[in-house]
Amino acid sequence: MKSIQLNPLGAMSQLSKLEVDKLNHSADSPLYHLFRSCCLAVLNSGAETDNCENLFDENEQFDIRLVSRERGVKIELVNPPAIAFVDEKLIKGVHEHLFSVLRDLLHMGESFNGREFPGVAESAYITHKVFDMMRNAQTIKNTAELNLVVCWGGHSIGETEYQYTKEVGYQLGLRELNICTGCGPGAMKGPMKGATIGHAKQRYRNGRYLGITEPSIIAAEPPNAIVNELVIMPDIEKRLEAFVRMSHAIIVFPGGAGTAEELLYLLGLMLNEQNKEQVLPIILTGPKVCEGYFIAIDKFIAATLGSEAQSLYQIIVDDPKLVAQTINTKRTDVRAYRKAKGDSFDFNWSLKIEPEFQVPFLPTHTSMSALNLHFDQPKAELAANLRKAFSGIVAGNVKADGVKLIREQGPFQLNGDRELMTLMDELLQSFVVQQRMKLPGSEYVPCYEIM
Amino acid sequence: MKSIQLNPLGAMSQLSKLEVDKLNHSADSPLYHLFRSCCLAVLNSGAETDNCENLFDENEQFDIRLVSRERGVKIELVNPPAIAFVDEKLIKGVHEHLFSVLRDLLHMGESFNGREFPGVAESAYITHKVFDMMRNAQTIKNTAELNLVVCWGGHSIGETEYQYTKEVGYQLGLRELNICTGCGPGAMKGPMKGATIGHAKQRYRNGRYLGITEPSIIAAEPPNAIVNELVIMPDIEKRLEAFVRMSHAIIVFPGGAGTAEELLYLLGLMLNEQNKEQVLPIILTGPKVCEGYFIAIDKFIAATLGSEAQSLYQIIVDDPKLVAQTINTKRTDVRAYRKAKGDSFDFNWSLKIEPEFQVPFLPTHTSMSALNLHFDQPKAELAANLRKAFSGIVAGNVKADGVKLIREQGPFQLNGDRELMTLMDELLQSFVVQQRMKLPGSEYVPCYEIM
Amino acid sequence: MKSIQLNPLGAMSQLSKLEVDKLNHSADSPLYHLFRSCCLAVLNSGAETDNCENLFDENEQFDIRLVSRERGVKIELVNPPAIAFVDEKLIKGVHEHLFSVLRDLLHMGESFNGREFPGVAESAYITHKVFDMMRNAQTIKNTAELNLVVCWGGHSIGETEYQYTKEVGYQLGLRELNICTGCGPGAMKGPMKGATIGHAKQRYRNGRYLGITEPSIIAAEPPNAIVNELVIMPDIEKRLEAFVRMSHAIIVFPGGAGTAEELLYLLGLMLNEQNKEQVLPIILTGPKVCEGYFIAIDKFIAATLGSEAQSLYQIIVDDPKLVAQTINTKRTDVRAYRKAKGDSFDFNWSLKIEPEFQVPFLPTHTSMSALNLHFDQPKAELAANLRKAFSGIVAGNVKADGVKLIREQGPFQLNGDRELMTLMDELLQSFVVQQRMKLPGSEYVPCYEIM
Amino acid sequence: MKSIQLNPLGAMSQLSKLEVDKLNHSADSPLYHLFRSCCLAVLNSGAETDNCENLFDENEQFDIRLVSRERGVKIELVNPPAIAFVDEKLIKGVHEHLFSVLRDLLHMGESFNGREFPGVAESAYITHKVFDMMRNAQTIKNTAELNLVVCWGGHSIGETEYQYTKEVGYQLGLRELNICTGCGPGAMKGPMKGATIGHAKQRYRNGRYLGITEPSIIAAEPPNAIVNELVIMPDIEKRLEAFVRMSHAIIVFPGGAGTAEELLYLLGLMLNEQNKEQVLPIILTGPKVCEGYFIAIDKFIAATLGSEAQSLYQIIVDDPKLVAQTINTKRTDVRAYRKAKGDSFDFNWSLKIEPEFQVPFLPTHTSMSALNLHFDQPKAELAANLRKAFSGIVAGNVKADGVKLIREQGPFQLNGDRELMTLMDELLQSFVVQQRMKLPGSEYVPCYEIM
Repeated sequence: MKSIQLNPLGAMSQLSKLEVDKLNHSADSPLYHLFRSCCLAVLNSGAETDNCENLFDENEQFDIRLVSRERGVKIELVNPPAIAFVDEKLIKGVHEHLFSVLRDLLHMGESFNGREFPGVAESAYITHKVFDMMRNAQTIKNTAELNLVVCWGGHSIGETEYQYTKEVGYQLGLRELNICTGCGPGAMKGPMKGATIGHAKQRYRNGRYLGITEPSIIAAEPPNAIVNELVIMPDIEKRLEAFVRMSHAIIVFPGGAGTAEELLYLLGLMLNEQNKEQVLPIILTGPKVCEGYFIAIDKFIAATLGSEAQSLYQIIVDDPKLVAQTINTKRTDVRAYRKAKGDSFDFNWSLKIEPEFQVPFLPTHTSMSALNLHFDQPKAELAANLRKAFSGIVAGNVKADGVKLIREQGPFQLNGDRELMTLMDELLQSFVVQQRMKLPGSEYVPCYEIM
Repeated sequence: MKSIQLNPLGAMSQLSKLEVDKLNHSADSPLYHLFRSCCLAVLNSGAETDNCENLFDENEQFDIRLVSRERGVKIELVNPPAIAFVDEKLIKGVHEHLFSVLRDLLHMGESFNGREFPGVAESAYITHKVFDMMRNAQTIKNTAELNLVVCWGGHSIGETEYQYTKEVGYQLGLRELNICTGCGPGAMKGPMKGATIGHAKQRYRNGRYLGITEPSIIAAEPPNAIVNELVIMPDIEKRLEAFVRMSHAIIVFPGGAGTAEELLYLLGLMLNEQNKEQVLPIILTGPKVCEGYFIAIDKFIAATLGSEAQSLYQIIVDDPKLVAQTINTKRTDVRAYRKAKGDSFDFNWSLKIEPEFQVPFLPTHTSMSALNLHFDQPKAELAANLRKAFSGIVAGNVKADGVKLIREQGPFQLNGDRELMTLMDELLQSFVVQQRMKLPGSEYVPCYEIM
Repeated sequence: MKSIQLNPLGAMSQLSKLEVDKLNHSADSPLYHLFRSCCLAVLNSGAETDNCENLFDENEQFDIRLVSRERGVKIELVNPPAIAFVDEKLIKGVHEHLFSVLRDLLHMGESFNGREFPGVAESAYITHKVFDMMRNAQTIKNTAELNLVVCWGGHSIGETEYQYTKEVGYQLGLRELNICTGCGPGAMKGPMKGATIGHAKQRYRNGRYLGITEPSIIAAEPPNAIVNELVIMPDIEKRLEAFVRMSHAIIVFPGGAGTAEELLYLLGLMLNEQNKEQVLPIILTGPKVCEGYFIAIDKFIAATLGSEAQSLYQIIVDDPKLVAQTINTKRTDVRAYRKAKGDSFDFNWSLKIEPEFQVPFLPTHTSMSALNLHFDQPKAELAANLRKAFSGIVAGNVKADGVKLIREQGPFQLNGDRELMTLMDELLQSFVVQQRMKLPGSEYVPCYEIM
Repeated sequence: MKSIQLNPLGAMSQLSKLEVDKLNHSADSPLYHLFRSCCLAVLNSGAETDNCENLFDENEQFDIRLVSRERGVKIELVNPPAIAFVDEKLIKGVHEHLFSVLRDLLHMGESFNGREFPGVAESAYITHKVFDMMRNAQTIKNTAELNLVVCWGGHSIGETEYQYTKEVGYQLGLRELNICTGCGPGAMKGPMKGATIGHAKQRYRNGRYLGITEPSIIAAEPPNAIVNELVIMPDIEKRLEAFVRMSHAIIVFPGGAGTAEELLYLLGLMLNEQNKEQVLPIILTGPKVCEGYFIAIDKFIAATLGSEAQSLYQIIVDDPKLVAQTINTKRTDVRAYRKAKGDSFDFNWSLKIEPEFQVPFLPTHTSMSALNLHFDQPKAELAANLRKAFSGIVAGNVKADGVKLIREQGPFQLNGDRELMTLMDELLQSFVVQQRMKLPGSEYVPCYEIM
């Protein structure tokens, strides 16, 4: 048995006895299992895998515990995977991530109940908690730079696309823009790597590589070690809300079902009447080889959400410099908008998010087949439902609970307007063909059926 | 109407909408009144007064509100008292204190109920919250310096005594020891001022001047602006627990009823069997003129708690250098003890505190006269009861609620063993004569009667 | 033999072999003796003495050497005086001062010859070197705060005056003004101590306590440990030039011959036609008891340099707050002036200083008696000559070479216009009576004779 | 005419009037031309060129001047090349480099004459100045990390080799090792880029990317913007001495004549009897495709300097991780050696360098043909002469003066032992074939003839 103890780091380097008990293995510590699996995922940093079941199976002997010491609480790792170590020493970035997990799991703990704000509506409370989680993780920086660019895109992308995301990151970094992603490999890692070099050239010491994840996806998308701020949100809906409220611009790189989920969520919000005046640059971009990909997406949006939705984003093919320049230029508008609204530079409170985008959607065979996938509903609602459909597919592809459901009960069944079903089928099919659903190496078996 | 807006500072520079609502004036904001009065007290920094009723009466026009802005939440002060301003600009130290008040009031908020740790004993939970409040205020520094010296003593002391506390502070500062006090004037300010000079000569950049207070006393003991870490604890019991668990040594300067309360609390804990091995240097000290004062105290301790209690402290008269050297030398023992116990260098978890020292004691005419002030009880319990008696007298002297009770219903009545009553009477009488009960300027009318 | 080694500090923590040789004791190391005596003076920090001969006599066994080690060059002290130690550990401020001495002695070394700027006038070169010394000591901060207040005044002052200088320092510190003095005791220490407390309350982390001295005076005015930037200039003329070019305002507290020298130097410069537009607030101030002192000075200035000179300064009696407010308010004018001239905020290049104020004046019996002390010369020249006269008296009072000269050859003899002689005699006599010439404790024997 | 003004940066942000005059264009400012051309080179950062004549021709309209302002001295660029700008804003790294040029040119100024150390031997003085230049540039950090890895190798290398240097840099960075190179493109840039990513993952905030160059080569090898410490040494000999005295390990990547010069210089030193005990890991490394290259070099060393020279280095092919691990492991030995010698961790004083490696060699047709290139001399001397031969070839290839000489007078002529000549010819020929002499794009015309 190999065991190492990690020195405490950051704000939660000292814990109370009660907190230590809560995270340590014992009869009544539900949090322990979540803590163990998130830490295992984090320790898998650098691994090119999205199969969380493999990860857990291969590391059955792995254990974790907290040990109180004079200088704070140490994390003891028993039989940790070798991948995050350099010559027997844990990479410092990963070491920090483990303490981020500890911090966030303790903070989300029991607190999602709103008892401290009696009489408040659920929607307002969810937003409060999203903010509270982000602030507790010290990601609300108060710098007035308005330079956080959220980058979405697939974890499974080809080399050309990957180099392109790096180049975009480099151009963003040269303009002292910071990066926020879902913190896995592929399009979530490239921009950070590129920005690191850009920031170095600009002597930009406060480079932020913010990764926002959630317990159910972290094992499939282990944070890369460049991420220097890691936040674990309670669920995908709060994670998405964190992305959009924190962002000053959003770039969508090519991706699969997860990227589609993100884009639909975003368009769904922006189509809301109350968000008419919102200033939030959205750019879809990729190298020349992806042109077809964006045509397909754009067509799907046109056919489902219409031209108003199309007008919300700009597609830029094969021009990293233009992407970065466009975002940099629009910063002035974003600042002006926030100032006009008296809204925080660091957290977009004025963005209206309806409960249907906030309340957790639990994908099951029942809930998936019950989704309203018909044209005859408001665009924003259709976007919300489509978002849920793609969210379920992501779960079926890579999230532990979803994968288990599919294995036990077969694919989810989606049904709705025939035309809509055809559109979805085509889009999903193209993701499969382009190997965007899962990392290459195994044949992809769809976790859904279009009825 | 004069109004100024203060820029946000520190960890709570950004608040959620719900938090802002909670602190702002409205029908359902009980926290607002507490917030207003604590801020008013803080703004009184530098005033030589311990009459909180005067303070509130003179500042009826004072108001406070939170205003959300692009760069965070500003505190707006309406008709603030002039005393904390230099040429119309608020002293930065006081500015910081206001945001400390905000931080601590929000954090203590609804959270004292233990719901997040179901099934946990009250005592363990209180200790958790004391720790949690201190950590949230970023006072748990993890420096391994073990150099926090708690200084207790009167807010109302003479010039010779004041100069002496400064000199002790200077000698502590020269040895890179930090200061923690109750954060008012007198013996709570002198050591900080002296240490500031000592730290400057030693280029000690991390000088800590930690003030721990509570809402009911803060108005009578406004924090001086040198305090660079201010914490508002929920009540006197948690404040006392914070003092002793944070301290690496304790100095007791001459003082009145409050100082007696603190000393009895401390001796009560240390007499506990389970604290036999504790290493915590306790020094009673003052200039030559105070020798009589310490003889009286020592005699009172001897007669009530016995020689074991006397053996817990050392009396040093008129030798600031020796005080500092003694504490500095004993640091090695404190470190060794913590290491041996695997206890935190920054928070003394291993100190046993019984519930009778933790559960809030609310002084009323009923509770005061019901105190068991007889010899025939264990020493530690007697200490606990005596502590409560003095605590009640402090309340009757300077705390708003206590003062009001006394005005309305006359003095508290204390009764018990005749001999004990005589001892107390003598001690209290000597405090009165030496003008330690209230700041000079008005005649002191006792708030107690010894039956 | 007691010996301690000090860890290297600051920019000169690593030295070349040649530099080490230069400062170490050997047949051909003239610098060694200067290094030893300056360090001895620095180690005398805190001593209340101005008798450098005593200092050297008492410390005959003291030695100093440099020792190369892996982590830089250590200073080894053999038999150092005990005064600067706290429990056997050297005060960090003094430790830093020793490395400042090392830095400045090495830097001034051979370099005062102008070879690197062939064909340049001596005056321009002297100014370059003054700047170069100050920059090399990292005192040119580039902060744009324009807040360096030079405080002049006696090393030998009474308790009331001392408390007053502290209070002025406190009021300056509250306004985030920094202090520069000649770095000895008395009026050179008080303002720094007061400012330290003011800065602490304002959380002003960049408090500067700049001491500018020179080898021949340092032993008589050992730097106090609060000085956190110490510079050793080659001679009194460069020291004076450094004071005025670095300053954004000048305060003159009561003092003796040295203070008179400084004031005459300053007025001499400011009377120069080319300095007509200069903006440099000059305030003479002291407590109520000093009113007579300022009347005498003012009268002397009126009689010698005339009303134009009088108009250059403002006398404020017993009002520390007004002193600080006045300086703070005038900062705007100083800034505007520098901007208009395109002159550095940190070093007043545009101030014209004639060679007669720059070229070192070596006081000997010959040079002193040859001084032109007659009214029939331009005011600025008269000021220059008067300055030299007082400079010589300072040397005769406290500088090693001067004291030796007087002991061997009797008092300096000053002669000139009878009326002028009478004025000087009266002024000097009043300094003697007020015990401003030397620290109390010995009878003052004048080192001059007015013919 | 386009003109921009750059804000002052770093230690030399304030200059004296005399210094400004010295660098500004005027009749008597020889330094101005050097300043202009070095700055032009620096502004060419990122350009893939080694033709300095082109650079100067294309930028005839470029000018530079210093402008004194309130907050320091601004550098004004007139018609600067566009390449170092991002959206019209100069890259901060390049901005810093310009002020490094200013700092070093001023410091080297007139000072290379030893007047400040009368009677000192030239060799000792040269070493002092190398140290002094490096210290003045604040590159002597006193961190005790012993982690500066000097990487040598060609500016003109293929993509595979470039990726390999990046990977080695990444592995070094993961082990918190820092990089020092000659600061051009190719093998001088790759390791820095890789290390940047490695450092980011390890949260290593003090990543050093030290570039050491000299005026005659800087135009052919413009520093890349990642270089965060740039030093301009006076000539190639002092640059080489700086490399070896600063290094804790040396990696030699494939390169051309310059790399051969560096390796011969290094082996020449290490062959010195007095350096027998020196501990300095030297590793020759490259990807699989370079195996032949290293065989050729190794063979050349064997034939010229013998097996003792061969034993000084280790060749590692295609294993970046092993390279980094080897260096990291040997750090312990380096530390032990320095400690045993009492030598600085940051500057290897104990390394003996004979004058023949220190005194500047000026390559001319005369001096080149006069080189003693025969076997019958001590190995170290032969190494010194071979070093000079390759140094001359580098000059003829890319340095402005050398290129001009060759254009005017034809190739340098080298003569000596026939066998030695053949060996050199073969080695040089292989460099030509592998396109290591000049960047691809033009046909390489040799600047030498082997007689």
